[in-house]
Amino acid sequence: MTTSIGTETVTLMSARVREVHPMIHHITNSVVMNFTANITLAMGAAPVMAPSIAESAQMAGYAGALLLNIGTINPELLESMVAAGKAANEKDIPIILDPVGAGATELRTNAINTLLSELKISVVRGNAGEILSLAGTAGGVRGVDSLATGEGNEEIFSTFAAETGIITAVSGETDFITDGKNWIKVLNGNPMMSSITGTGCGATTAVACFAASGTPLLLSVASGIACYNIAGEIACERSNGPGSFVPEFIDQLANLNEETINTKLRIEANL
Amino acid sequence: MTTSIGTETVTLMSARVREVHPMIHHITNSVVMNFTANITLAMGAAPVMAPSIAESAQMAGYAGALLLNIGTINPELLESMVAAGKAANEKDIPIILDPVGAGATELRTNAINTLLSELKISVVRGNAGEILSLAGTAGGVRGVDSLATGEGNEEIFSTFAAETGIITAVSGETDFITDGKNWIKVLNGNPMMSSITGTGCGATTAVACFAASGTPLLLSVASGIACYNIAGEIACERSNGPGSFVPEFIDQLANLNEETINTKLRIEANL
Amino acid sequence: MTTSIGTETVTLMSARVREVHPMIHHITNSVVMNFTANITLAMGAAPVMAPSIAESAQMAGYAGALLLNIGTINPELLESMVAAGKAANEKDIPIILDPVGAGATELRTNAINTLLSELKISVVRGNAGEILSLAGTAGGVRGVDSLATGEGNEEIFSTFAAETGIITAVSGETDFITDGKNWIKVLNGNPMMSSITGTGCGATTAVACFAASGTPLLLSVASGIACYNIAGEIACERSNGPGSFVPEFIDQLANLNEETINTKLRIEANL
Repeated sequence: MTTSIGTETVTLMSARVREVHPMIHHITNSVVMNFTANITLAMGAAPVMAPSIAESAQMAGYAGALLLNIGTINPELLESMVAAGKAANEKDIPIILDPVGAGATELRTNAINTLLSELKISVVRGNAGEILSLAGTAGGVRGVDSLATGEGNEEIFSTFAAETGIITAVSGETDFITDGKNWIKVLNGNPMMSSITGTGCGATTAVACFAASGTPLLLSVASGIACYNIAGEIACERSNGPGSFVPEFIDQLANLNEETINTKLRIEANL
Repeated sequence: MTTSIGTETVTLMSARVREVHPMIHHITNSVVMNFTANITLAMGAAPVMAPSIAESAQMAGYAGALLLNIGTINPELLESMVAAGKAANEKDIPIILDPVGAGATELRTNAINTLLSELKISVVRGNAGEILSLAGTAGGVRGVDSLATGEGNEEIFSTFAAETGIITAVSGETDFITDGKNWIKVLNGNPMMSSITGTGCGATTAVACFAASGTPLLLSVASGIACYNIAGEIACERSNGPGSFVPEFIDQLANLNEETINTKLRIEANL
Repeated sequence: MTTSIGTETVTLMSARVREVHPMIHHITNSVVMNFTANITLAMGAAPVMAPSIAESAQMAGYAGALLLNIGTINPELLESMVAAGKAANEKDIPIILDPVGAGATELRTNAINTLLSELKISVVRGNAGEILSLAGTAGGVRGVDSLATGEGNEEIFSTFAAETGIITAVSGETDFITDGKNWIKVLNGNPMMSSITGTGCGATTAVACFAASGTPLLLSVASGIACYNIAGEIACERSNGPGSFVPEFIDQLANLNEETINTKLRIEANL
């Protein structure tokens, strides 16, 4: 593994997404479908959303990555996720999990347990409360909002990653990404991003685009989050509120380049 | 009950939403999910959308208000609404109903009858045609559009509110809000708002945010509609069409303050 | 049939949409519902989206056109489309089909076969790969993206239109619209439009609005696509990326007028 991550790696990984132009199969919540499809396109990948169990597995087989997001989960959709996930596992297509609201209801807890036990997940991305819930630590979630912060819980996240073999990305003021042994912290972003619906789900889309395009996975995941957060940071500076943020953010994702990455990137790593 | 409503009340109620930061559980139509989630956030509340019957009741129990919108209703979703509504009723969590297209099809008429008979609804918000349909007056709806206006039908709306005990908010050129005895008219807004999808549904979201945060309910509902319409009015003035209206409107909702409310508020009341 | 199409026809057809203000019933994919509802409104028509089989047929009976889009199809939704389609056929309401991702999975291929055999479709609009798939030519689709271009395949499209009696509109760098005998090419548009999700689905919405408002159908379909592409072309010029494109595009659709059409229209016809 490379022992460093900086402008060069992040820029290279970002360029790889546009070259590979991977198809990202989303089985996701109905609130963010349009937003995350546009994020996928802006990052240079191709979104597809085929939630029905009658085709989700077949479609997954053609994808560069499979994204599973439980934001508006129901028992039928969970079945479809498992079917798609098994098809992805067979072809070594990485599965990226977004455990929206994990711990908030029994349905979500059960869904997460099913997905973790039935499938080999490559990456999970969530807020601190959600990841703490996955790691068996209770009380971190209200609805779909985190009540906990990542600060001080890095040990728990690393243990979870080490025990499950799942690269774990925890969003927050600082984003913490770990494979259980190595870690990367992305300091980019802006707190205003949490006042736009789907910005968490969109980060998972970024992760999926990058995971489908380059290895090693820890570096591509962190690069995806860095690009996403840099675009968000700039969009916050250039917009007048959460409404004008959305078009500005998609523009920034589409127009991100080496110079911007170099100027903005704030990252720490222990590789 | 306070015998007046003006800048002070509306500003206070608006501030209460940001203080309480209530979780608003939406079981709503798939056309407006993203838009109304962003409206919820811009007003200072926290959206959650958990439509599956496998969790809708549990999630409703954690909410500050439950919003039921029949815009893309189906029999399963109706069942889920009833389950969530019963959980909300048990804990005295206010239920806000948006009877989209009521009267347009048998499914919608039956859905409304089921919701009104099975649940204690706190507030209903719709256009004149929809509310006339609820009050048993036929012929007011084409698809999801009102063919009737509120003007001249205030008596029917008041009787409906008095007989059902449901605070009734009727959108139109002037918005009319009544508990059957007292009424408030909000004169803010702009006709252009009806050329953006979901602006009616969004008004119901505003009502839910405010109903979850302050009493008396008649005043909080009217305050929510006033804030919503003021933001819409300003956004119409500042945008070049229905496309640029959307980001501008969300910005205005997020940035609304006492000064703006004071400058813009046009309200009449009989309290 | 008129033997020419130019600014006058396109302007007239566009004005007809605003006069007739037809209700367009969409049974469509959940990714683009909000976007295409706003496109419908911006063009001067009234969107309604009633996907449940418990009301789709009744609602279709009130519509000016029925749009069927298989982007997130499942077996239940297909049943609902057939029911709505039969109701539309009985009342001679035009059905507009968008075969999103046709050929990509068995579910989509079967869905298309069912719709084509059970219903009388008036117009189909898709990318080259999708229409080639309908015409029995394999290998044109990856996910929901076309791998083929329209250029050089006009013969296949014309034969498909002639054999099925379906007006066939193929999107691409040049849009090709044919009834099997006559054809119209719309040269307007901008390649950037394909980096925004739902711009294809939105073109089908434009077609439905115009098909509901004026005849002959070949001219109204081509006029709808011309207006849509002109608005897109201008929006691309005026925006900084795919994010700012969206609000700008909706504004341009709403503000389109004879002068703009006259300045921009690039069209060829063999009538």
